[in-house]
Amino acid sequence: MDRTEKTDEALLIDRSPLPEDLDERLRRQLTFVTEVDRLKTVLRASPLAAADRRENDAEHSWHLALMVSLLAEYAVEPIDVGHTVTLVVIHDLVEIHAGDSPVFDPAAVVGQQEREEAAADRLFALLPDDQARGLRALWDEFEAGATPEARFAKAMDRLQPLLLNWVGRGGTWGMPGATESAVRRREAGVVAGSTTLGDAAGRLVDEAVRRGWIRPDGPRD
Amino acid sequence: MDRTEKTDEALLIDRSPLPEDLDERLRRQLTFVTEVDRLKTVLRASPLAAADRRENDAEHSWHLALMVSLLAEYAVEPIDVGHTVTLVVIHDLVEIHAGDSPVFDPAAVVGQQEREEAAADRLFALLPDDQARGLRALWDEFEAGATPEARFAKAMDRLQPLLLNWVGRGGTWGMPGATESAVRRREAGVVAGSTTLGDAAGRLVDEAVRRGWIRPDGPRD
Repeated sequence: MDRTEKTDEALLIDRSPLPEDLDERLRRQLTFVTEVDRLKTVLRASPLAAADRRENDAEHSWHLALMVSLLAEYAVEPIDVGHTVTLVVIHDLVEIHAGDSPVFDPAAVVGQQEREEAAADRLFALLPDDQARGLRALWDEFEAGATPEARFAKAMDRLQPLLLNWVGRGGTWGMPGATESAVRRREAGVVAGSTTLGDAAGRLVDEAVRRGWIRPDGPRD
Repeated sequence: MDRTEKTDEALLIDRSPLPEDLDERLRRQLTFVTEVDRLKTVLRASPLAAADRRENDAEHSWHLALMVSLLAEYAVEPIDVGHTVTLVVIHDLVEIHAGDSPVFDPAAVVGQQEREEAAADRLFALLPDDQARGLRALWDEFEAGATPEARFAKAMDRLQPLLLNWVGRGGTWGMPGATESAVRRREAGVVAGSTTLGDAAGRLVDEAVRRGWIRPDGPRD
């Protein structure tokens, strides 16, 4: 995974600049819409269920959006479904520049917040100012997890890789840092958004530990 | 592209069945959520801007969702943004069984509607009945294009590959069926959802024709 700042890299739209007489606001929006194509190239640690390869951030974000619309009934507090879907659609955009930070890799999370803040400043600045501020506010809302919508969005973000690991009989649970206690800390993020889904996640983790797909904590964990 | 009906294929969740004491409604929902992982393996004809490979349906659906939230201001009629995002998130699900039907491939669209209807019946039946009906209603709404939300969703579905072709200096415009008139028929779908975005799409198509990225109609087109 490359986490270096590629500040000198051209924008994707520079390969084929938009007509010069296009309205400036629309030009900035279409520049951004093109640039975020890069999210499709940011690989996560999680394996797909449907193919023998790792998932990328765009696929992951789509999967969460669908899960929000199908599982919203289990939110612990009433949520605005459309707003929650928007949160998951944008929640990983900063990884275009900051890279994915696998949760079970202790080295990956060092400096993660600073990297992602810098990435947000850089990426969102492509948009018209009002939309840059709006997107930043949505991302901050997701990160803070202080609204019912953000908590449910985060719950989906925890539940989805857990399901992929379950179907894959291991997946990222095989990473060195994925001890039972580390997995249960992730599971707590599901509980915070949904008691029912948190209970189901707990059942899967219990069973995965029993089957040896998640290793127990050792004396040094 | 494989368009055969894989009716005898097991569900992804069968590789690792959910605990038997899980609530039946939730079990059906998680079975569906797992099964739709297959959308990440349905390849479209469109090339990515950010990598040298074709786009898949999950990535495409995510891209449209982001575009809806950023470009909604250009809808010809006021739209419910959250509802429109939901439409684009689910609009290609039937292609899990029916496959993608590239618009510039005349052979691909033969029998497309029947294939997709059968695919919807099969896929949505995994869900609890109320949600199967709800998803079918959303998909029908998108397909019919009779609401402002469906028209804007379709406009994004036409504009996004056009942008990818523009940045790729050709892309699917290089397919045999992609004459100027065929491309302009697709452009009409953008206009129906947004005059401003339709105008911009028209400018890009004009310029692409001028540069030779889209071939003029011949005597047999």
